[in-house]
Amino acid sequence: MIQHPCFTIEDWNIHEKELHLDVLAQTESIFALSNGHLGLRGNLDEGEPFGLPGTYLNSFYEQRPLPYAETGYGDPKSGQTVINVTNGKIMRLLVDDEPFDVRYGRVQRHERALDLRNGVLRRTVCWTSPVGRTVNISSVRLVSFTQRAVAAISYEVEPLDAPVRVVVQSELVANETIPDMGKDPRGGAVLPSSLECEEHQAEGTSGLLIHHTRVSGLRVGAAMDHRIEGPSETVVESQHTPDVVRIVITAPLQPGQRLRVVKFLAYGWSSQRSRPAIHDQVMAALSLARFTGWEGLLANQRAYLDMFWGHGDVEIEGDPQIQQAVRFALFHILQAGCRGEQRPIPAKGLTGPGYDGHTFWDTETFVLPAMTLTFPHAAADALRWRHSILDQARARARLLGLRGAAFPWRTIHGEESSGYWPASTAAFHMNADIAYAVTQYIGATEDRAFEQEVGLELLVETARLWHSLGYQNADGSFRIDGVTGPDEYSALVDNNVYTNLMAQHNLSTAAETARRYPEVARVLGVDAAEIEGWQKAAERMFIPYDQRLGVTPQDDTFTEHEVWDFTTTTPEQYPLFRNFPYYDLYRKQVVKQADLILAMHLRGDAFTPEQKARNFAYYEPLTVRDSSLSAATQAVIAAEVGQLELAYDYLSEATFMDLYDLEHNVRDGIHIASLAGAWTALVMGFGGARIQGGALSFAPRLPEQIKRLAFQVVFQSRCLRIEVTAQEVSYRLLSGSPLRVRHYGNELSLTITGAVTRPIPPIQAGLRPTQPPGRAPVARSSPTNKRRRHRGDPILF
Amino acid sequence: MIQHPCFTIEDWNIHEKELHLDVLAQTESIFALSNGHLGLRGNLDEGEPFGLPGTYLNSFYEQRPLPYAETGYGDPKSGQTVINVTNGKIMRLLVDDEPFDVRYGRVQRHERALDLRNGVLRRTVCWTSPVGRTVNISSVRLVSFTQRAVAAISYEVEPLDAPVRVVVQSELVANETIPDMGKDPRGGAVLPSSLECEEHQAEGTSGLLIHHTRVSGLRVGAAMDHRIEGPSETVVESQHTPDVVRIVITAPLQPGQRLRVVKFLAYGWSSQRSRPAIHDQVMAALSLARFTGWEGLLANQRAYLDMFWGHGDVEIEGDPQIQQAVRFALFHILQAGCRGEQRPIPAKGLTGPGYDGHTFWDTETFVLPAMTLTFPHAAADALRWRHSILDQARARARLLGLRGAAFPWRTIHGEESSGYWPASTAAFHMNADIAYAVTQYIGATEDRAFEQEVGLELLVETARLWHSLGYQNADGSFRIDGVTGPDEYSALVDNNVYTNLMAQHNLSTAAETARRYPEVARVLGVDAAEIEGWQKAAERMFIPYDQRLGVTPQDDTFTEHEVWDFTTTTPEQYPLFRNFPYYDLYRKQVVKQADLILAMHLRGDAFTPEQKARNFAYYEPLTVRDSSLSAATQAVIAAEVGQLELAYDYLSEATFMDLYDLEHNVRDGIHIASLAGAWTALVMGFGGARIQGGALSFAPRLPEQIKRLAFQVVFQSRCLRIEVTAQEVSYRLLSGSPLRVRHYGNELSLTITGAVTRPIPPIQAGLRPTQPPGRAPVARSSPTNKRRRHRGDPILF
Repeated sequence: MIQHPCFTIEDWNIHEKELHLDVLAQTESIFALSNGHLGLRGNLDEGEPFGLPGTYLNSFYEQRPLPYAETGYGDPKSGQTVINVTNGKIMRLLVDDEPFDVRYGRVQRHERALDLRNGVLRRTVCWTSPVGRTVNISSVRLVSFTQRAVAAISYEVEPLDAPVRVVVQSELVANETIPDMGKDPRGGAVLPSSLECEEHQAEGTSGLLIHHTRVSGLRVGAAMDHRIEGPSETVVESQHTPDVVRIVITAPLQPGQRLRVVKFLAYGWSSQRSRPAIHDQVMAALSLARFTGWEGLLANQRAYLDMFWGHGDVEIEGDPQIQQAVRFALFHILQAGCRGEQRPIPAKGLTGPGYDGHTFWDTETFVLPAMTLTFPHAAADALRWRHSILDQARARARLLGLRGAAFPWRTIHGEESSGYWPASTAAFHMNADIAYAVTQYIGATEDRAFEQEVGLELLVETARLWHSLGYQNADGSFRIDGVTGPDEYSALVDNNVYTNLMAQHNLSTAAETARRYPEVARVLGVDAAEIEGWQKAAERMFIPYDQRLGVTPQDDTFTEHEVWDFTTTTPEQYPLFRNFPYYDLYRKQVVKQADLILAMHLRGDAFTPEQKARNFAYYEPLTVRDSSLSAATQAVIAAEVGQLELAYDYLSEATFMDLYDLEHNVRDGIHIASLAGAWTALVMGFGGARIQGGALSFAPRLPEQIKRLAFQVVFQSRCLRIEVTAQEVSYRLLSGSPLRVRHYGNELSLTITGAVTRPIPPIQAGLRPTQPPGRAPVARSSPTNKRRRHRGDPILF
Repeated sequence: MIQHPCFTIEDWNIHEKELHLDVLAQTESIFALSNGHLGLRGNLDEGEPFGLPGTYLNSFYEQRPLPYAETGYGDPKSGQTVINVTNGKIMRLLVDDEPFDVRYGRVQRHERALDLRNGVLRRTVCWTSPVGRTVNISSVRLVSFTQRAVAAISYEVEPLDAPVRVVVQSELVANETIPDMGKDPRGGAVLPSSLECEEHQAEGTSGLLIHHTRVSGLRVGAAMDHRIEGPSETVVESQHTPDVVRIVITAPLQPGQRLRVVKFLAYGWSSQRSRPAIHDQVMAALSLARFTGWEGLLANQRAYLDMFWGHGDVEIEGDPQIQQAVRFALFHILQAGCRGEQRPIPAKGLTGPGYDGHTFWDTETFVLPAMTLTFPHAAADALRWRHSILDQARARARLLGLRGAAFPWRTIHGEESSGYWPASTAAFHMNADIAYAVTQYIGATEDRAFEQEVGLELLVETARLWHSLGYQNADGSFRIDGVTGPDEYSALVDNNVYTNLMAQHNLSTAAETARRYPEVARVLGVDAAEIEGWQKAAERMFIPYDQRLGVTPQDDTFTEHEVWDFTTTTPEQYPLFRNFPYYDLYRKQVVKQADLILAMHLRGDAFTPEQKARNFAYYEPLTVRDSSLSAATQAVIAAEVGQLELAYDYLSEATFMDLYDLEHNVRDGIHIASLAGAWTALVMGFGGARIQGGALSFAPRLPEQIKRLAFQVVFQSRCLRIEVTAQEVSYRLLSGSPLRVRHYGNELSLTITGAVTRPIPPIQAGLRPTQPPGRAPVARSSPTNKRRRHRGDPILF
């Protein structure tokens, strides 16, 4: 957790006023730049000190063996791990024989700011060397949204009080030493230096390194070139070894004189292309970067973001800290997905090696909803990636004795990479989650090409999975036994309600879509009998209900189990999975993360308002939120059942997760899904937005602390703006043809001619539900506090 | 599986008439000699060829890391693996420059016989060397029952047709190369040569090696000495290196002349004693072996076995092959346990490295019943070992958040060594199994010293476990959720009936015994309230019942699950766990091994005869017997419900398991529990013997093929003989004071004055239940067939 008052509250910046080395790794994740293809952690320009050096290319991984004390049939033998590729960020600086290092000399000023409007990371330093030379150093770094292979750094040095001789060593470094990630299973595996050099060269101001991985056999090239502005005496030299290429710029500087180096970086990788092809690919990208130039790259970056914020911004009046944090969240979501281009979106984006760089169900369930309504092309790309790994998913289904496709719980390249099957293979819901994201995307975009090329096949193959996984029992119910739902503190249960409802949706939308595209369906081998089978399974899907308690059990027997002894569980024992064995967690009523509550969000149509309220009241005291994938969902349902203050607290938790390191693992990378949850809590929680059957509906309602909430969504080639206050909501179509939406169930027609305003109906909420002792979200009582403290800590942000 | 007609049917020998190299590893296990402390696989004297060289000392192990792809809290970090210690069996022979090797030259005759009466392995060979010299070679090998550190070999060579010069190299060899054990998880881990030499010496006819293990830090010493009878020109030399000590005996032999070498071997090991202490220990044992001499060792061996067979023999009229096999079984059970002396009894005894040399619940549940009624001191020793690891079991319980003791699923030294918790940690029933064995032993022996010193504490600590593991729900039932029963094709279920009934027995006997020994109980911290708590939990133990089907479900939801699709499962797909993922096995109705059926055996008092018959009929079609721990239990219940032909078929399967390698893994060692099952099927199945509440009862009934069954049992310091024919049963007390037993529920008084004979009441059995296709036991239709073939194969033994 970040204990310092790190960031000042600004509308469009994450601004760090001083450097704290104890949270360096965390800030490296927060200040990471990425475009979904290339990611650079916010490491200091000079390379050291670092928390964790990191440069990532989407889907560039190494393979490693997955070991087992006792192997079972179907256990994957090897896994994939994202690796730190060639580091092009390094700009070392020597000031009169003293290397610039914040651990030596005196740092007079050190500021960093992630500029959310301009898409750059700025740094300004005033440093006095151990021998007393004072220089100003500033850098601006960007990873281009418009040229996805390209990053660039503008680096300046200026002496303040005396002439100095400076040397800037601009480098490409492969096989950096990575510190051990500790024993937290959520960290990634650290592989020893795994890149083998194929080519290294340097000439004039440019240089290049080409390496390949030892086992996965991927090839990566990195190249750099420089534009140098300095005094006429400036000298440039170059050096190259298999793992380091160095351009050395030496200049004498008088006070008032500056040395400015603009570094252009280009990356390329391939599993198939030859060394010469990769060489040419990165050199071409570098040429294009030089052609665009630093100013051009900056301008394009700004233009790209203007468009993004124009479609996707969320405005909050009454809580500037939430305002800042939600923009930070949206910026990182954009960074994670905008140029992924049919590659997966990892749980940590390209900001760190956490979770081995794998993608999970998080992407479809938590990230894509935000993308679908703000920059839908990224959602389509992510789902096209799923489509591209269908062969691996089909093979996995065969291995598991099932039809259709069984998507991997965690992967980079498409093969299952999880070594603990009760919480991965058995979590079949992830297949319905993908299908759900497909239907949400299609509903929000009416992208018929996607539907026919990609969507239908994903729906068909996942429906086939469910049809073969479940079975119809003697009384005619369709049961799905022995699976694991979202709540990872239960496993191998019968009829997990979330799973069954999502499978039901999967089966019925597959049937409906296949009927609409009979030709495409025929090519996929779907006949009328199969469609009928899906339809029947969906209709007969068994959903347990506990008559005694009057609540929906999370699964067949959940409510029969002993309730976890929360009273004897100490705050230090959370997260529980780090301090208690799974056998014990599994057999008791304790919920790691929203499960039935998530079902009520995604399949709200399956519950009455009364059921939602009762269920929410039942599960709140059992839910410990040992996962970052919970607070946002709880915020959405809390808002829906009228628990607005609680929803606001959950919103805060989801929104501040990374900026204040609430889960203590931001060092490994930020939580894209939790950041998306900030958007979800606002737009789907307080905005009450839902996409159902291709239509958009809203049921907005604000907590007291938020005076005004305004957000834009992209929907069916239109852009809408929704503004909510305590009393009313106004809907405005900003672009596109007229659209019908629902406001609290009533249809409205929107045209671009003007806003439609409606009052917000009152709601009668019950008592605020309680959470397990010590696990309530921090009550965000005073919006003027500057920072978020430890969950449960009485000093508030 | 052994495909050759390997063994001739003889009453007291396992006699192999010719050598088949393709089943060498299997015969090495079958011909293994052991006394429970020291075990020698039946490797050929000359060391090569071998299937798997093996020399084991009970509890002598190396530690190895247990790897996980994803570690969970409580997963053991390291495991224990039995290792092959210094091999003292090797007697190499050179005949006129040609090493004796059955793969070269011509083997004119090769016979081996395990002599069950004399406790020796005999071998006679007539071999013609590649250059045409023919010699007779014979050896007799024993592992002493009366001197547990000692083994001995008598080795003779005699030329037949021409003078030869022979060299016998008698060796001690450490760190032999072990072949890879393949990928079957039931095999053990192969550790690289793991012994480090501390001392090696040789002088005259004797030599010694002392080594220690690298990680576990155990020290082992092996010493040998020789008595040599040969022509006067015989020369003896010695050599020693850190891993090999060699005594070389060279002699010229005329036809008719013999060279005879008697080799005495002594072993010793310790985790604490110093090198000099181990040195002296093995040299002392060697002195004692020389003092006893070869003839003395033979005589003591015979005397020991005379006593054993006098107490424990089982006689069968009508099936000589079963007769032979059950004696083979009893002999190996004796070998596994007789001199274990407070060490564990591994699943494979000391006959091979299978299952890493670990002991499991098999010992208490399947092996100790036979020991308890034949050589009860060994049962006491095995339970005293359990008592000795209480500290580790208590620590494990603490780690798991439980009170009392949680015994390890698999171990050598007491720490949990299993790396797959759903089938180990969650299989808590093993604690009740230990408690059950305690009460059976006490019931059969009235050993009050044991009861107070060992028994009560084991009962108390296991009762504490159950009391903290289960919970009383709203309606007052005591439930045990989320555990795994004996059937490893189900896992993490609620209220597994076997577990609950065994826990009930555990709780109530702990309460009852604690009340009888209030002083001892007080020292163990037991007060009246705790006893009351156990009693209440036992009384309120929840036992599910399926009203719809009228059967006892294996657990709360078992009978609601889909039935495994047996029709599409091919014979090659068994055992299922090697060809199907656990997720699928767990969620369907398919039973790996007797579970509810075992509950009906051990807790027969909890079921009516009608329930037993209905339940047996329900579970038979679901039980695939993918474990060697099933057939004997099915035989017992089949016999009880009157399915005598089926019981006979199961008896055959259990009895022939190892002799004909039905499970295809005898190469790793024999299955002690399955061998004990042969005795169980006969004595508890067809003999209907049970110990309940300290009394012995019988309900004998024979299948048509067995004309007469006679067996002896040791009970409460008496020896009884029971003879059963088709019509009647005669009970005779052979020694001791009068005893009351039950015959079909009616009490009889037995005295040594004469037999009591009673008729066998008729039974009305239903239709013979069916098994899954291809999984019926082989119908043993013709008792004259010489050998057992593949299960399902129509050609019968």
